[in-house]
Amino acid sequence: MERTVSCYDCGETYAFDARKRCACGEPLWFDSDPDGFAWPETGSVDDMWRYADLLPVSDPVGVAPGGTPLSRAERLDDYAGCNLFLKHEGQNPTGSFKDRGSAVGVRDAADAGFEWVGTVSHGNMALSTSAYAASADLECAVFVPAETPAERLELIARHDPHVFTVEGDYGRLYADTLSLPVDVNFVNSDTPLRVAGQKTVAYEILEQLAPAAPDAIALPVSSGGQASAVWKAVRELDRAGLLDSVPRLYCCQAAACDPIATAYRNGDRTVTPVAADETIAVSIANSDPPSGTRALAAARDTGGAVVSVPDEDVRDAMRAISTRAGVSVEPSSAVAVAGVRHLSRTGALEANDDVVAILTGSGYKEDYDTEVRTDTIALDDVERELASIVDT
Amino acid sequence: MERTVSCYDCGETYAFDARKRCACGEPLWFDSDPDGFAWPETGSVDDMWRYADLLPVSDPVGVAPGGTPLSRAERLDDYAGCNLFLKHEGQNPTGSFKDRGSAVGVRDAADAGFEWVGTVSHGNMALSTSAYAASADLECAVFVPAETPAERLELIARHDPHVFTVEGDYGRLYADTLSLPVDVNFVNSDTPLRVAGQKTVAYEILEQLAPAAPDAIALPVSSGGQASAVWKAVRELDRAGLLDSVPRLYCCQAAACDPIATAYRNGDRTVTPVAADETIAVSIANSDPPSGTRALAAARDTGGAVVSVPDEDVRDAMRAISTRAGVSVEPSSAVAVAGVRHLSRTGALEANDDVVAILTGSGYKEDYDTEVRTDTIALDDVERELASIVDT
Ligand SMILES: [Zn+2]
Ligand SMILES: [Zn+2]
Repeated sequence: MERTVSCYDCGETYAFDARKRCACGEPLWFDSDPDGFAWPETGSVDDMWRYADLLPVSDPVGVAPGGTPLSRAERLDDYAGCNLFLKHEGQNPTGSFKDRGSAVGVRDAADAGFEWVGTVSHGNMALSTSAYAASADLECAVFVPAETPAERLELIARHDPHVFTVEGDYGRLYADTLSLPVDVNFVNSDTPLRVAGQKTVAYEILEQLAPAAPDAIALPVSSGGQASAVWKAVRELDRAGLLDSVPRLYCCQAAACDPIATAYRNGDRTVTPVAADETIAVSIANSDPPSGTRALAAARDTGGAVVSVPDEDVRDAMRAISTRAGVSVEPSSAVAVAGVRHLSRTGALEANDDVVAILTGSGYKEDYDTEVRTDTIALDDVERELASIVDT
Repeated sequence: MERTVSCYDCGETYAFDARKRCACGEPLWFDSDPDGFAWPETGSVDDMWRYADLLPVSDPVGVAPGGTPLSRAERLDDYAGCNLFLKHEGQNPTGSFKDRGSAVGVRDAADAGFEWVGTVSHGNMALSTSAYAASADLECAVFVPAETPAERLELIARHDPHVFTVEGDYGRLYADTLSLPVDVNFVNSDTPLRVAGQKTVAYEILEQLAPAAPDAIALPVSSGGQASAVWKAVRELDRAGLLDSVPRLYCCQAAACDPIATAYRNGDRTVTPVAADETIAVSIANSDPPSGTRALAAARDTGGAVVSVPDEDVRDAMRAISTRAGVSVEPSSAVAVAGVRHLSRTGALEANDDVVAILTGSGYKEDYDTEVRTDTIALDDVERELASIVDT
């Protein structure tokens, strides 16, 4: 069967090759055909390769991504204002959702005979692509912004990619690499192969909650690639008659850098770059999102919305997630829960709505300066000290 | 059915209560009855609660541990000297194997009406217990050695436990807390409930490789609790006729702190404390392991061995794992792979042996000072710079 990519916006279809953008300028996505697809029969979600029939590649590579837990977080319901479920993408092999797309992209590059893969990233995607390239014995070129902190580069360097720090506009760098005449297969954030892999998180959520689809899925949005993937997955399944209802998609951004939310608020049809301030949600701080317009369409098409939340709400959500659900997440993930709280307070979500927040990344890759209070005691005082706090 | 614990050594059995040690001094383990147990039918391992019939508790708590990937690491076969499989315990909710035991211990404490749980730990177990206590709305008391680094405490503090840093002998602290007359349920490293939960990693390995059991399982050993758990699991399954063969268990330690390996080399029946040097494998640096003698028995009983490896081999294994399998692990996990390499070189393992190394913890919780080499370039030079390395 011929492999094709198509444009969500103008509908144009192309044979699958190195092309990543439609003639109209919008990003293309990989077409998969869910006709004949049925949910696997086992009822337990082991990893993303169970959906190989819906992926552009079928042979695994490296450690299998996916199969991450979906947990019901009752202790956060009051905080979130709804029935909250958490999808734990930080438990993927390199600690973020990016592994799903990296595995597909790296597998395809290896199958096609490339010796090099590449990516442009602030951190998580560079780490993930480097790791999967290592497991496939491919060389990897990583382009990161000049201001990327040393501790993030240390994690990436473990997999021995070639790291370039680039001075200059990130949006242009990202776009330039999509059409370089160099034998490097770039698997950037919103390229067709990566988006195809990222779709599997939606398949898993829907299978884990089957037979009832959730009312809504909330996720942090940066380039818009992941939101596009979730939208593509539910569209395809819906058209194939495999869903009773389509979840509303809520795209969540940090207020300091919220080009997609700005366009949504303004009623614009397209997303334009914004001047951004600093935010703790560094991994979604993209002021010029390449799939921003597609993410905007995803939210509108499903009856959802795009919201943004201030950093103080993000910090508060991080603390709520770690003290009530026992999960340590990066700030960008907390943006989704802060977004859900905001949506409940403004009436878009209701108390009996089943809402899945996608926690995209682990909180273990960086130090968040949590206040550490300890009592230093002598060994002989353990019983007395413990009794004094327990019995009060 | 009455719940019992028993002694692996003298065979004494007791009703399950707060008791954690046999009258003979050895640690007790929880008895489960695999008669009537059959491998679940689905063939895909979702999480540890699929083995609820073999656990002391059956209701989940927090994010479900387990269901971690088992990957075939062909690119490490030459290095390891055998057919190497990796079990990725760092992908558990708090980034280590400890979550399996924490979930069981915290669930049991909640069921029994405790308001407090406690633990004595260098790091991973403190983090895990704190997280599960938070998800169950229990208070948590954590006792860590005085020299515990601030960055490790920062991760633990996110879940808001009460942290005590204790001056004095760690082995005595550990033992003292097992019988404190205080209403705190201590779920230490080798206590019956934790060991019961830790058994599930062995169930998963055996189910993921079924129908053929691996020839050997290698794991890093600290207190000996985890090695005891794996031994208990294979013993029970073997006695119930559910295994064709019993894997040999290889316990691996860092040479700078290797009391169990020392006892093994000396042909001793029991493990005695050693004077330890510093090692990068901090999370297994236990010079006075409470289940050391039990771990020694596990290795001998299954036809395995106890080995120790120098830090330079551990660093080398970390690098091999991250550059050839794409996985970032903590040094203690690399001890297992370094141990396998050592065992192959000395003839204990052969090239056609199927060997599972348990990677107990994620490499993302600490900075390992990997050398970071980057080329800083201007945006306009991306194509030229990339072409110059790709085409050579
Ligand atoms: Zn188009
Ligand atoms: Zn005994």
